[in-house]
Formats: sequence, structure tokens, C-alpha cells
Amino acid sequence: MKKKTLTARRFVKPSYSYLIEKKRDGGEFTQEEIRYLIDSMLDKEIPDYQLSSLCMAIYFQGMSAQETATLTEEMMMSGEVIELSHLAKPKIDKFSTGGVGDKTSLVMLGLSAACGVVTPMMCGPEDEYIISTLDKAAAIPGLKTNLSIDEFTKQLDKLDGALAAQNKEISPADAILFALRQNTGTIPSLPLITGGVLSKKLAEGAEGLVIDVKWGNGSFINDLEQAKQLARSMTRVGRALKRRCVALVTDMNQPLGNCVGTGLEIKETIQLLKGEGPEDLKELVLKLGMEVVRLAGVAGSTLSAKQTVERHLKEGKAFEKFKEIIAAQGGKTEYLDDPDKFPKAKHVRKLPAPKRGYVHSINAAMIARGVSLLGAGKDSGAKKIDYTVGIDEIKKIGDQVKQGEPLMMIHYNDEAKLENALEYFKNAYRLAPKRPSPSNLVIERVA
Amino acid sequence: MKKKTLTARRFVKPSYSYLIEKKRDGGEFTQEEIRYLIDSMLDKEIPDYQLSSLCMAIYFQGMSAQETATLTEEMMMSGEVIELSHLAKPKIDKFSTGGVGDKTSLVMLGLSAACGVVTPMMCGPEDEYIISTLDKAAAIPGLKTNLSIDEFTKQLDKLDGALAAQNKEISPADAILFALRQNTGTIPSLPLITGGVLSKKLAEGAEGLVIDVKWGNGSFINDLEQAKQLARSMTRVGRALKRRCVALVTDMNQPLGNCVGTGLEIKETIQLLKGEGPEDLKELVLKLGMEVVRLAGVAGSTLSAKQTVERHLKEGKAFEKFKEIIAAQGGKTEYLDDPDKFPKAKHVRKLPAPKRGYVHSINAAMIARGVSLLGAGKDSGAKKIDYTVGIDEIKKIGDQVKQGEPLMMIHYNDEAKLENALEYFKNAYRLAPKRPSPSNLVIERVA
Repeated sequence: MKKKTLTARRFVKPSYSYLIEKKRDGGEFTQEEIRYLIDSMLDKEIPDYQLSSLCMAIYFQGMSAQETATLTEEMMMSGEVIELSHLAKPKIDKFSTGGVGDKTSLVMLGLSAACGVVTPMMCGPEDEYIISTLDKAAAIPGLKTNLSIDEFTKQLDKLDGALAAQNKEISPADAILFALRQNTGTIPSLPLITGGVLSKKLAEGAEGLVIDVKWGNGSFINDLEQAKQLARSMTRVGRALKRRCVALVTDMNQPLGNCVGTGLEIKETIQLLKGEGPEDLKELVLKLGMEVVRLAGVAGSTLSAKQTVERHLKEGKAFEKFKEIIAAQGGKTEYLDDPDKFPKAKHVRKLPAPKRGYVHSINAAMIARGVSLLGAGKDSGAKKIDYTVGIDEIKKIGDQVKQGEPLMMIHYNDEAKLENALEYFKNAYRLAPKRPSPSNLVIERVA
Repeated sequence: MKKKTLTARRFVKPSYSYLIEKKRDGGEFTQEEIRYLIDSMLDKEIPDYQLSSLCMAIYFQGMSAQETATLTEEMMMSGEVIELSHLAKPKIDKFSTGGVGDKTSLVMLGLSAACGVVTPMMCGPEDEYIISTLDKAAAIPGLKTNLSIDEFTKQLDKLDGALAAQNKEISPADAILFALRQNTGTIPSLPLITGGVLSKKLAEGAEGLVIDVKWGNGSFINDLEQAKQLARSMTRVGRALKRRCVALVTDMNQPLGNCVGTGLEIKETIQLLKGEGPEDLKELVLKLGMEVVRLAGVAGSTLSAKQTVERHLKEGKAFEKFKEIIAAQGGKTEYLDDPDKFPKAKHVRKLPAPKRGYVHSINAAMIARGVSLLGAGKDSGAKKIDYTVGIDEIKKIGDQVKQGEPLMMIHYNDEAKLENALEYFKNAYRLAPKRPSPSNLVIERVA
């Protein structure tokens, strides 16, 4: 037998134009083509202008389930994949596609780990809407989140939980793609979101994922059907890559909880870790927590999952574990024990209701933008985040207000910034004479 | 009255991301937005990666008739617009979206001018499929086509016809866009084709345009419906910009005429200018010529248009005018008078029919690619075009052949190049036992 016949069929590199046209015309990429594209990104061989038009073609033509799984796997393999199989405990992470006022990731860090579930939580700057989980956590003095992979795994081994900034070695292909997508109108592509998000999450070493897919004006998905599709896409790809996955599609049509900011949100996080705090977030923490313990096998039934979660919150174990994790990463836990220690903004003023009525709707994106303009967001032009500013005592949908009664309290340091932010806050609220019918927080569960 | 109220509403520059997203979501650009985009291209302010994803969004979402007209006008206004209103005669140009073996542009240059129609013909490198009209014309020794706008208009004044390479001052926005579109899968966008092609053609100073929209495997439009749409888009935009326009949708599913190459095609051009040559091209020249003289008002009726065109061909006036134009641009007309003077390739060999039967189909794109590989095209890797190579005596669809009988004669200089080209030539032909039913050359007329 000639040697030639033994050689594997060689992959002939196609031109980038060919690949763009193939996707533009609705074709399906092979694994070799996807790998070639990822390699070309990493080697900076494919020019940005070709990559961006390819992303737009993917936006319009989509990707099959198989293609999306391959994309995710190849992106994951573009960097380090953390190995946690030496840890005996179940390893489950929770993440959200990003919302306004969502503190559940930080709560789950303590809660899951307290329940005996290893929680390898890495967050990117884009994981949350405008104010990221990392930016919120940074309000805790001393906290260090730029852990090396070695520090990250060692802490998981010791404490079952760690909160780390997205490590550069994890899915570098996503960093390249995401930066390009941000400026080219290609963020809302389901397969690209799936590939981008899951390639990082699956590289964290978790065996399972609980995914909170946000839908509404405070998320980047305004179309409910799209949110459901994303939930299905993510769980399907997760399963294809041998991970246990559950996704909840949840309502993000008003800020979650009673406050938005960084330091203010940490205070609410502490309440939630103790089983206290606003009802909507308590419900979300419970639902997400139940999914985590069931996926981990810590609880067998729905009832036992509920009891496990509630017990760990009520008995203070979630809060204790959270403090342990924060302390291990240099965070000053005296602030967590006495939230009054957190520095405060110079001024607090109310946003008065312009008339009496019921809160009919709240544009959460405008709320987030306003808080960002106060100085809590990096996109406000400021280099540094102001950890004292934000809003709290937020009136929620269905709440009744009298004319002049506060719709929220605004914590601010700068009158000019306040003026800019007020425009957004005022326009975010719609009042109506009738109480709107209540809506469900969890809209769909996809397993 | 305060001065402020007199000020025109200021256009607030949107972000490029906003414009990409607007088009992605099916929005319609305003004139100000289109002008801003064109200015941003010219000023090199919009990055290529944003422009390319915008082009892909336009590919999928299209543009309205109004948007396309505005795009065309703004692209045209990005450069020089030639003014020919001082010329009393009608000014009509003919152009094609590009085909294989198409010599009609060169024929029309002589024919239209002979009929008393000013023919301001500027050709870009992309105006024809693989081998451009300019590359063909360059086979005439001495011919200079890089005319300044001043030289171009002066020659039009004197001789009624001029053949010029696309001047850099004409529609520079198109040069930028086209270069980007070539590598980003966005060539086949109807509004971008319309804008790109018409912005240049309308800047030439013609009052009317006869457009040959090619459909088939030897053009860049394989879908007949798309070709018809392009014909409608172009005539509509032309009219919106106050130009008389007629478009013919013509069959480009086999090479036109009996030869493909540069020097070889010039020889066939000479035949056609004398009213001789292959039937398909004779018919196309007649149809296009009739449209030109009718659009120009030189002939009133269909019959008189036909007679005018046929007379100018038969009586040698078209050929004489062509020679005058070529001579004025430095071309050695002795080659036109005695085509045997053209240098010849070293070798000529036949492509034998593999079996007996009728030519059932010919892939014109493969024919073009093969001829290009012989050395006739710039994309064959060679820096210089070999004006001697090509193919002639092409068997056409419906022709009967015996086994071993030539399907074509190949003129070549290099055995290695021949080998590469043969692969394409062989695979371009499909023979069948039955004669296929004949098809019409002109499929639709859009006025």
C-alpha cells in the first residue's frame, strides 16, 4: 500500500471570501472550516473587515445546532480549559445574559458554594448590562478578582467558590470576536452569543450550567421568542458538549430589586445572602438556587431543593461562605458585616412622581443609562467608577404613588451628572391610573 | 426674530454602529445619513470593518428605490461630474454588467458615434467579467485610455466618442466601496451595484444609458429574477436622476461570439463593426444599437432604428468611426485594417469533443477562468496580460459535434498554463444526445 493513501485528506484552506459567501448563501460550515476561521482570528490573519461581514452574514443566516456546538467548542479550545475533575464535589456555575439591578450572580457564589457545589465563577466585562458583576464586586474594598488560573483552581479546591475576572487565557477567540461584534451591529446573533458565552463558561471547568436568559427592555434581547431561542440554543450546545444545562427565561422589563449601582447593590446582595431583601430577587435567587442544587445532585426533589436553598440562606451559611470567598480574595469583610461602613454619596434626593397613579412600566435600559451617567458605569466617559452613586428605594411596576412621592432615591456627587441622569430617570417611568396586571418573573424553563 | 430660529436643523452625526443596526433592522437611511456615510468613506473615518458589516446588512435588507437613488447621487457627487451640455448632439452611453466574450461595448463605441450620438465611454477594471473592455482594447498597440477629463471631453467634442479608463476623479466613493465589497461577499447587492455602476456612468455626462444586464453562468447574476430586479433598479434610479434609461436583460449562459481573449476578441470586434461576425453578437449589437439611436432621438421608429444601425454597420461607417477614435487615442489602426498583423500565440491546439452529440450547456465562467489561466487575465497571477492567448472557433449550445471534433481552438504560449486551463475548458462543456431547445438572447426589455 502506498503511503499516500494512508494520509488523511488534507484540508485545503478556502479563501475568506468563499467562507463569507458560503454563509451569506445559507451554507453550513464544516468543523474544519470553523477551526480554520478561529485559527485565522487568533493568528490575526483574517482581516477585521472580512470577519465583520462574516458576523453579519451569520446574524442573518444563523448557524445550525451542530455548527453552533462546533463553534463553541473550537472557541473554547482556542485557550486554556480549566480542569477541575480532581475535585470530588459537583461543579456548577450560574450566569446571566445580563440585566439591570441583577445581583444574583454574587448571591449564587456564596449560596452554591455553601450548598457544597463548586462554583467556578468567571465574569467578563460584558456579562452584565452596563454595570458588570465585577464592577459591583469591586465596590468591596480590597477585593482582588484578577486571579491566575492557578489561584482560581486552588481557591475552588479550598473554598468551593471563586470570583474571577475573565482570564485572558480563556477563550481568546471570544475576546477578539466580541470586540469586533460590539461595533458592527452583530451582538444580537444567537449562535455568536451562544459560542461567545458558552466557550468561556465551559472552559471554567463546570460540569453543569444554570443559565439565566434575560428578556426585556433591560436586557439585550427585546423579543421574547428570541430569548427562548437563545435558551434552547445554549442548553442544546451545552448538552452537545457533555454538560448538564438548565436555562430560565426571566423577565427583565424593570430593574431587579430595589437598587441599581455598585456599592448600593452590594448592600442588597448582603440582604439576599441572608434570605432577606426584595421579593423579586428573593424569588429569582430561590429558583436559580434550586436549579443549581438539583443539577448538582445535592437535592433530588423540588421540595428538597427548595428546603436546601432556604436553609442555607436563613441559617446564614450562604453569607458566611460569601464572606470566606471574599476574604480569601483580599476583600475587607468588615464592610459586609457592617454595610454602613460603605462610603456614601454626598447627596441623596428623590425623583418625585409627576402625578398620582400606578407604575405601569419602567424602561430598565434608561434606568441603567442614568445610573451609569451618575458615575457608576465605565461608559459614562469616566475612567474610574464612582462606587457611591446609584439609585435605591425604586418603585416597581404595580406600585401606587401619590404626586410628589419618590419614584426612587438618587445618590449622587455631581450636580451636572445628576442633570444628565435625571433625563433618563424621568423618561423611564410610565404612570397609569389603573394597576397593571402582574407578570411572571420566570417565563420559561428550558432543560 | 432671533437668529437661532433661522438656522437649519443641524444634522447630529450618528454613530456608525447606530447606522449599521438601523440597516440591519430594515430601516431606511435619510439623505443626510447617506451623505454622512459617503463623506466618512472619503475621509477614511469609518473603519473598514464597520463599512463591510454595513454592506452585508444592505445585502440582506436592501434599500428602497429612494434610498438607492440617493446613494447613487451622493456617490456620484463624491467626485467630478463631467459637463457635456455644451455638445448639441444627444449623449448616450451603453454599458454591460459584465459577461464572457462580450465585445459589444467596443462595437457600440464606433457604432453610436457614427450614428451621431456622443458616446462618453469610461470603463472600470470591473466592468467586465474577468477580462475587462479596457484589457481587450489594450491589445491594440499604442492605444492610450488613461485620458484626463479634459482630454476625454475634448475628444468627445471632436469625434463624438472616447474610450477612457475609469478616471480616479469619478465617483471615488465607488472605488473605496468596490474594493471592500470584493473581499466581503457583498458584490451581489442590487442597491450597491446600482449605486456603484450608475454613480460612475451618470458622472460621465451622458443624458441617457442603455444598460445590458447579464444573466447566467458567465455573469455575476445567476438568478434571472435578480437580473430583472437589477434592470428595474437601474432604470428607476436613472430616471429619478433625470436620465433616459433602457435596460435589456440578456442571456449570458455561454460565451458570446466565437472567441474569448484580448487580441482575439479585437478581431471579432472588427468583424462586428463591419456588420459581420457571429450571429448572437450581431443580434446583440443590433438590439443595443437600436436602443441607443431611439433613446438619442436619432431614429423615431423601431424600423428606422434598425435601418440606421444596419446601414452604419454595412456601409463601414461604424468601423471608420471606431478607427478615428482609436487613432485619436494613439492606437495603431493598421492593426485594425489588417488583423493578421496582431501577434499570435506560439501554439494552437484543439479541445476534442470526448464523444459525439450536441452541446447542451457551457459554463461560461469556467471558460473565462480557463482563458484567464492561459495568461489573458490579470487574476492569473501574471502582472502582464498576454494579448495573444485565448480561444476561438467555440462550439456553441445546440451545435452538433462528432467525437474528437474540436469544441474550441486554444491559443497558448505555455504548456503548464495550458494544463491548468484545460481542466476548466473540459469541464465547461456538457454534451447530450439531443439538441437542446434554443433560448432567447434578449430576455426582457425594461424601460
